[in-house]
Amino acid sequence: MPRLPSKKSVLPRTGRERVVIESVAPSIDCGRFPIKRIRGDEVVVLADVFADGHDVVACTLYVRKGGARSGIESRMVALGNDRFQGTFVVSELGTYGYTVRAHIDRFASFCLELSRRPPEDPDLTSAWASGALLIAEAAEGAEHAGAQAEALALREAERVFRCDGAASTKRALAIDNVLAERVYRFAERRHETTFERELMVSVDPERARSSAWYEFFPRSFGALRAAHAMLEYIADMGFDVVYLPPVSPIGEYLRKGPNNSPTATATDVGSPWAIGSARGGHKAVAPELGTLADFRAFCEKAASCHMEVALDIAFQCAPDHPYVQAHPQWFRHRPDGTIQYAENPPKKYQDIYPLDFETEDWQALWQELRDVFLFWIKQGVRIFRVDNPHTKAFSFWEWVIADVRGRHPEVLFLAEAFTRPKVMHRLAKLGFSHSYTYFTWRNTKHELIEYFTALTRGPGREYFRPHVWANTPDILPSYLQYAPRAAFAARLILAATLSANYGIYGPAFELMENVPRSSGSEEYQDSEKYQLRMWDLNRADSLRDLVALINRIRRENRALQDDRGLEFHAIDNDNMICYSKATSDGESVILVVVNLDPYHRQSGWLSWTADCAAGADGRSVQMHDLLSGARYLWSGGRHFVEISPENIPAQVFRVRRHTISENNFDYYC
Amino acid sequence: MPRLPSKKSVLPRTGRERVVIESVAPSIDCGRFPIKRIRGDEVVVLADVFADGHDVVACTLYVRKGGARSGIESRMVALGNDRFQGTFVVSELGTYGYTVRAHIDRFASFCLELSRRPPEDPDLTSAWASGALLIAEAAEGAEHAGAQAEALALREAERVFRCDGAASTKRALAIDNVLAERVYRFAERRHETTFERELMVSVDPERARSSAWYEFFPRSFGALRAAHAMLEYIADMGFDVVYLPPVSPIGEYLRKGPNNSPTATATDVGSPWAIGSARGGHKAVAPELGTLADFRAFCEKAASCHMEVALDIAFQCAPDHPYVQAHPQWFRHRPDGTIQYAENPPKKYQDIYPLDFETEDWQALWQELRDVFLFWIKQGVRIFRVDNPHTKAFSFWEWVIADVRGRHPEVLFLAEAFTRPKVMHRLAKLGFSHSYTYFTWRNTKHELIEYFTALTRGPGREYFRPHVWANTPDILPSYLQYAPRAAFAARLILAATLSANYGIYGPAFELMENVPRSSGSEEYQDSEKYQLRMWDLNRADSLRDLVALINRIRRENRALQDDRGLEFHAIDNDNMICYSKATSDGESVILVVVNLDPYHRQSGWLSWTADCAAGADGRSVQMHDLLSGARYLWSGGRHFVEISPENIPAQVFRVRRHTISENNFDYYC
Repeated sequence: MPRLPSKKSVLPRTGRERVVIESVAPSIDCGRFPIKRIRGDEVVVLADVFADGHDVVACTLYVRKGGARSGIESRMVALGNDRFQGTFVVSELGTYGYTVRAHIDRFASFCLELSRRPPEDPDLTSAWASGALLIAEAAEGAEHAGAQAEALALREAERVFRCDGAASTKRALAIDNVLAERVYRFAERRHETTFERELMVSVDPERARSSAWYEFFPRSFGALRAAHAMLEYIADMGFDVVYLPPVSPIGEYLRKGPNNSPTATATDVGSPWAIGSARGGHKAVAPELGTLADFRAFCEKAASCHMEVALDIAFQCAPDHPYVQAHPQWFRHRPDGTIQYAENPPKKYQDIYPLDFETEDWQALWQELRDVFLFWIKQGVRIFRVDNPHTKAFSFWEWVIADVRGRHPEVLFLAEAFTRPKVMHRLAKLGFSHSYTYFTWRNTKHELIEYFTALTRGPGREYFRPHVWANTPDILPSYLQYAPRAAFAARLILAATLSANYGIYGPAFELMENVPRSSGSEEYQDSEKYQLRMWDLNRADSLRDLVALINRIRRENRALQDDRGLEFHAIDNDNMICYSKATSDGESVILVVVNLDPYHRQSGWLSWTADCAAGADGRSVQMHDLLSGARYLWSGGRHFVEISPENIPAQVFRVRRHTISENNFDYYC
Repeated sequence: MPRLPSKKSVLPRTGRERVVIESVAPSIDCGRFPIKRIRGDEVVVLADVFADGHDVVACTLYVRKGGARSGIESRMVALGNDRFQGTFVVSELGTYGYTVRAHIDRFASFCLELSRRPPEDPDLTSAWASGALLIAEAAEGAEHAGAQAEALALREAERVFRCDGAASTKRALAIDNVLAERVYRFAERRHETTFERELMVSVDPERARSSAWYEFFPRSFGALRAAHAMLEYIADMGFDVVYLPPVSPIGEYLRKGPNNSPTATATDVGSPWAIGSARGGHKAVAPELGTLADFRAFCEKAASCHMEVALDIAFQCAPDHPYVQAHPQWFRHRPDGTIQYAENPPKKYQDIYPLDFETEDWQALWQELRDVFLFWIKQGVRIFRVDNPHTKAFSFWEWVIADVRGRHPEVLFLAEAFTRPKVMHRLAKLGFSHSYTYFTWRNTKHELIEYFTALTRGPGREYFRPHVWANTPDILPSYLQYAPRAAFAARLILAATLSANYGIYGPAFELMENVPRSSGSEEYQDSEKYQLRMWDLNRADSLRDLVALINRIRRENRALQDDRGLEFHAIDNDNMICYSKATSDGESVILVVVNLDPYHRQSGWLSWTADCAAGADGRSVQMHDLLSGARYLWSGGRHFVEISPENIPAQVFRVRRHTISENNFDYYC
């Protein structure tokens, strides 16, 4: 805490620092949390920097890699209005620190004054002497640094300033950037100011920017070994990540039956989220799925299909989990000494014991849970989907993610927290690489535009990476209940093109499973969470080909691999939504139009102009619908589109803008 | 600087704190600077506070006065969406610190769970026992605190919870706020979280919120003693503050003559801003103005007229200032050993030596300059207008203002910094109570609306108190050059009603001095800065009566004494501007319409609706034009106004809204 002022007045240690540094950005919660970037990104840093009076300020960006004692400096550029900009590239995974330093550039200030002095100024003689002193000081610095050539050049400049030569010669030398830069490099930086905080950027692997996920229950296909064929099926659809529900042994005591019934028969398989039995806890594989070796083989098979395995980590225990006997102090007890099961009255989860993060033994608990991650990393997992992180202590997540990523900076964590916005944002700030979103409940045009504008333009864009799911084993959204094929296709296309990170739970999705357990419920009828399901993957009406097509389009168009650059466009029909995504270099541009009405043909006029180089000046752009293969020539800013739900309920246009004209010929000038 | 994460993982000391506190507001630059308030204000503090899971969070605002070791706590109220609000009143001058603390309220969480349990819940028995434990713990706390009555009540509640009595009795007790509040007071707060920063509020006297200033040169009226009559003249116009240019001896060496001519004759009086001669420096009174005793008498006379004296402090020296001999190291030297005079090439100010804030002897310099303020405070000054603070080190101002206000918290500082916006804002943040603004150059409707919206709605509203000047000795704005009476009247009314703090430089203003030194210049012809002027205060066309009327209107209408609550309203004529000011209680409402065209009659339809209780529902409000005395009845939202520049070019309406209807009778229900 800063001390409040008292009557005893103390002169500040930094009293002679005349430069002020403010508003360094990007910065989250005053530097409390890192921003997030991808390996290879250029980080753009802005700062307000100024001094009293008319002196010129020199401003540098100071960057160091986590763990390093020192870093590197680069000049920041003045943008005007006291704003400076600098950039650096994050080429390695892990954490970087960045801050801003600034000082009065005395030689630049001298040169600026000089440029304003008329030739008849009587003070010019004195000015040359002042300039010579500043150059001499830099020359000394260069000599001290052993930069002989530079020192000589500086001494020569000093000599010119001191001699009786023509003012114009001296002036030409003074306004020469080479000299100014040389003096800057070797002059002593007196009273340099350093911004009061070191800000941080956390660097993730490329996968964090863009990924297509497929969630499935391997037990419905036999064991892990038997599910290898499923991996090929998923890879054929073009997914990057295969996400498995927990694979640990399932509790037997108070096991739930089909459709969450409170009683189970001996043959019921139970919920994979009721973790732990006499067969083992979080660091074991359920025997019905196979062995640890089978799990590793599954990961290897996935890798050979160019996919990664994401594993679900749910920190909760079935009553017969080994922790309950070994560490009863990790659970909350009732006054009668029994362990408190999970409750959110009137709901009761007798088959689940939550962990008590306020336990006296919290340090051992945290370390054990950390070891669960390290254990699965050893088996080949690099992505964790964390179940309900918002019901465990925030400080635990901050510590465990930093600890694990300190050892394995390539590891990613996806937060499955369907809860209040500030809680979701806190989890993202403290380290989760990705976050589940409310996409599942955003269906209308207005809802989608408002939500994705907030996600991509709000402050969260620096740390909250949206992961959107068309469905999950827990959520059959009302839009998809009893819905036709077009509804599934529309939600798939929205998910895959609005967000660079998306997922589906299959085969329920591509087979268009659409019956809820009951009216008003979002649970699936005969949910795979509690029972095995047989899936006919080769059904003629499967969406698998559309899924494959969409994933190929994502792979081939960089614009869809990034959440920056999303922009919505007006279309005069509330059943249709239109948006574009573009890379910052403008090389990849995709325009999407979706018919949100799965029952009727819809049409409308949309407003969109390619950019000033095309369209706007009367030239046309070629719009290539990557779904149907059709091509159109568009010019101007208003375009008619009509989409029938009988076919694919969307158009995903690749914009081909470089229509050649005489300007493109190299003999045109 | 925070340490960047390394591979060595350390468990956080605060690992068991489950509550998170974010986004505490108001806060300037992450708490680096205090917000500003007036004595008696209620400060409203907001924070985002939440925990993992479903537990109820209790949140308190912690406030302490500067210098105090401990402070007081008050409950914050949940506003929904994890936002909490608390308030405190700043009843004393000086600095207060505030921060937010929060913890899990275990008993409130218990009660919430209980309220959701159906009567047939088998876990109710266990719940009563848990509740009894929590109550017993609070009872122990009360016993320990010696709160006997409270302890007995708690023990009784515990007994009810433990006995076999009806569940309904227990339930009634649990949902009773008296019990919850009692348990809250005495229960141990486990793992309480404190927000990482203590934020600050700087409390100024009432004068800082609203004041009308009059600047004049006493030497034009003889000496200080002779100017007592002038004080009465100024008080009659209703001003609160009399502001004097520097009163110290004026340098004789290189003294400037009339109209800033580089040569002066023996009778020329010189510029009061060229401070110091053999007669003394910053801590002396120029002999031509009188003695120190005369200065004190002037302050006393002003006080007897209910005015305060504001003194101009210009930290710069004439070449013959005593500091130059006594402390040559406080000035910058050229290579030839001479002292560097002020320059901003091609402009030269040979009669001014700036102080060098980078001097090795900076500590002695700072202390001496601080003593200048303390010296004048001893003579009776409580308000300082600081000349060009942006050409002196920021860190000096932060220190000197804190030092002086630590001793004399009633002292105010006005920053005369006409410079770039970020520099002006920095000076305001670091402690200046008021700031000169760009008002002088904002003339059109669009310029005024944009500027005052930024001032009253932008982030500066927490620390940047605008002070607007219709003119100054340095600035005869182009709008007033060769301008008619209506232009002066319009600028006066705009200044006095747009801003709660305003000023004029007189008698030049009320006598409508309108000739610049040259075309393109904003300097006055025959500026009083360099020569004595004779003013005919009783000229028939003087604006003094209008000034007096405007100041009386400001005094009688609280809405004009505050910059919050300014709102602009549409009017369909670009030569007219319309705005209202209202107090937060809605008791005082002023609507202003100004004709910005001093040459022609203008009219237009304005859009304004009193509030939902009047006007909008068809009832009428009485609009009382305080300038002309005319009254109008307005209903609905569109109103016609017509203003001729021949009379007063504005209407300042007091809104009288409480038209009585049958609803006001107490037998109406």
